[in-house]
Amino acid sequence: MNFKEVLEQKVKAAEQIVCSYLPEEEGYQRTVIDAMHYSVKAGGKRLRPVFMKEVYTLFGGHGKVIEPFMAALEMIHNYSLVHDDLPAMDNDEYRRGRKTTHVVYGEGMAVLTGDALLNFAFETALKAFDLEPENPRIPQALKILAQKAGLYGMLGGQAVDVEKEKAGEMMNMDELTFVHERKTGALIECAMMIGAVLAGASCEDVGRVEEAARLIGVAFQIQDDILDVEGNQEVLGKPVGSDEKNHKTTYVTLRGMEESKNDVKEMSERAISIFRGLPNQNEFLNELIESLIGREL
Amino acid sequence: MNFKEVLEQKVKAAEQIVCSYLPEEEGYQRTVIDAMHYSVKAGGKRLRPVFMKEVYTLFGGHGKVIEPFMAALEMIHNYSLVHDDLPAMDNDEYRRGRKTTHVVYGEGMAVLTGDALLNFAFETALKAFDLEPENPRIPQALKILAQKAGLYGMLGGQAVDVEKEKAGEMMNMDELTFVHERKTGALIECAMMIGAVLAGASCEDVGRVEEAARLIGVAFQIQDDILDVEGNQEVLGKPVGSDEKNHKTTYVTLRGMEESKNDVKEMSERAISIFRGLPNQNEFLNELIESLIGREL
Repeated sequence: MNFKEVLEQKVKAAEQIVCSYLPEEEGYQRTVIDAMHYSVKAGGKRLRPVFMKEVYTLFGGHGKVIEPFMAALEMIHNYSLVHDDLPAMDNDEYRRGRKTTHVVYGEGMAVLTGDALLNFAFETALKAFDLEPENPRIPQALKILAQKAGLYGMLGGQAVDVEKEKAGEMMNMDELTFVHERKTGALIECAMMIGAVLAGASCEDVGRVEEAARLIGVAFQIQDDILDVEGNQEVLGKPVGSDEKNHKTTYVTLRGMEESKNDVKEMSERAISIFRGLPNQNEFLNELIESLIGREL
Repeated sequence: MNFKEVLEQKVKAAEQIVCSYLPEEEGYQRTVIDAMHYSVKAGGKRLRPVFMKEVYTLFGGHGKVIEPFMAALEMIHNYSLVHDDLPAMDNDEYRRGRKTTHVVYGEGMAVLTGDALLNFAFETALKAFDLEPENPRIPQALKILAQKAGLYGMLGGQAVDVEKEKAGEMMNMDELTFVHERKTGALIECAMMIGAVLAGASCEDVGRVEEAARLIGVAFQIQDDILDVEGNQEVLGKPVGSDEKNHKTTYVTLRGMEESKNDVKEMSERAISIFRGLPNQNEFLNELIESLIGREL
C-alpha cells in the first residue's frame, strides 16, 4: 500500500474509534445527542486522533487506553468548531460542505451541543480509568487534555483572536504567534504529548514532542495563510483571498510572502529533525508531517 | 453563633476557596479571564460547594483534596448560568442585580467565557492529583463531576427544557420530572456525592446521599414553582408570575397547588430522614436542608 492508502486506512480506524464513544441516540435529550453526532460525523481529516495514535505507537504503546483519549480530543476539536461557527462568533453557515450545527438545530441548541461535546470529552477520557484503573499515566494525560484545550491552550488563542477581530484591531507578530500557537498548535501538542505520555515516554521526550508539535501547528497555520493568497479553493477548503477580504492579520501580511515560505520550510524541517532524532522511528508519522505541511493532502 | 451566622461564615469560606482557584487576570487572553471572574464573583449562595464540604465533613473527611472539587463545581454552575443567559437561550440581561456576562463582554466573548469556565473546572478538579497523587477516590469523584454536569445530568435537563420552550410545547409530568431532576437536582447530587466519595463513604451511603440530593433538588424546584405563584420577588429573585407569563409548564400547573405543597413537604422529609438515618450526623447540614426547602433563606 502506498502512503495515501495507509493514511486512509488509519483515518478510517480513528473515525471508528471516535464514533464508538459517541453517546447513544436515545432519551428525552435525544436532539442534543443527534446534534453531537451531526457535528462529529461531518468528516474532517481526524488528524488529531491519528497523530495521537502514531506517537503512541512510536514510543511503543499498544494498549486500548489511548482510545478514549483519541475520541475525547476529536470531541473537543468539534466543540470548538460548533461554537466558532455561531452567529456571535464567525457566523459561518457551511463547513466541509454541510450546513453548520446552528443552522440545522438552532442557535440555542448549538451552544448546548458544543457544551455537551466538551463535557462529554472529559466523561469519555475518564473511561480510561475503567480500562486501567491503576495506570499512573492517566492523570497526567487528563491534565494535558484539559490544559491544552483551555485558557492557556486553544481557548486562550481563540479568545484573543475573537477580541481583536471584534475590535477591528490588527495584531502584531507577538500576538499573532500567541494566537497561532494556541488556536492551531495546542491541540496538536495535546495529541502528540498524550500519545507519548501514555506510551511511557520520558519527560525529555515528551518535551521534544511538544516542541515538534508546536512547530507543526504554527507551520500549518502559516501555510494556511500562504494558501489563502496563492492557493486554490479545493486545497484550502474555503474561498481564496478571504483573509484579505476580512482584513485579517496574517503571517504573510506581517512577514511577507518569501519570508513566510522560508519560515514554513525551516519550521517543518526542525519538527521532522526532532522526530528523526528520537531513538525510535515511525516512518508513516514522518511522512504524514511532511505531506501535511506541504499540503499535498 | 446562630444558624444564619454559621451559614454566612461557611458561605464566605467556600467563596474564598472558589476564588483562590480562579486564573490570574493577566496575559493576552486577559479579557476572557476577567469575564470568568465577573461571572463567578457575582455572588450567589455558593450552595453547591457548601453542600459538598458539609457532606465531606459528615463522613469524616478533613483534607484539602475537597477544595479543587468545590471550586470546579461552582465554575460549572456559573458556566451554565452564563450560557443560559445568552440571547440564543433565555436572553436575560440581569442576574443577581448585575448585568449578565454577554451584556458586559459581548455575545461571542460570553460563549467563550462559559466554555472557559467549563474547561477550567476540569483543569481545577485535576489539581486534586497534585495534593494526593495516589488517592484512588479522585478518579471516582472526577467521573461524578463529569457525569452529573453532562448529557445525563444538568446539560441533558437543560437541553430538553430549551427544546420544549423553543417549540412552544407543554411538558407532561415525566418530562418535567426529567428536567427538574437534571437541571436542578444533578449538581446537588454531584456536590453531595463527591463529598461522600472523597471522605471514603461506602457505596451504599453514596447511593443514599444521591437519593437525598435528588429529593432536595426536586423539592427546591417545586418550591420555586410555588413561589412563582404565591411568593414575593425578594425571596424568589425574579418577578412573581413570570412562569405563567412565559406559558411555562410548572409542577404547579400539572399537579395543582395543594398537591405540590404536599409533595415538597413529603420529599424534604424523606431527604432529611435519609440523613438522619446515617451513622454520623451533621446538624448544620440538616438545618441547611430544612431552611433551604422552606426557603427561609
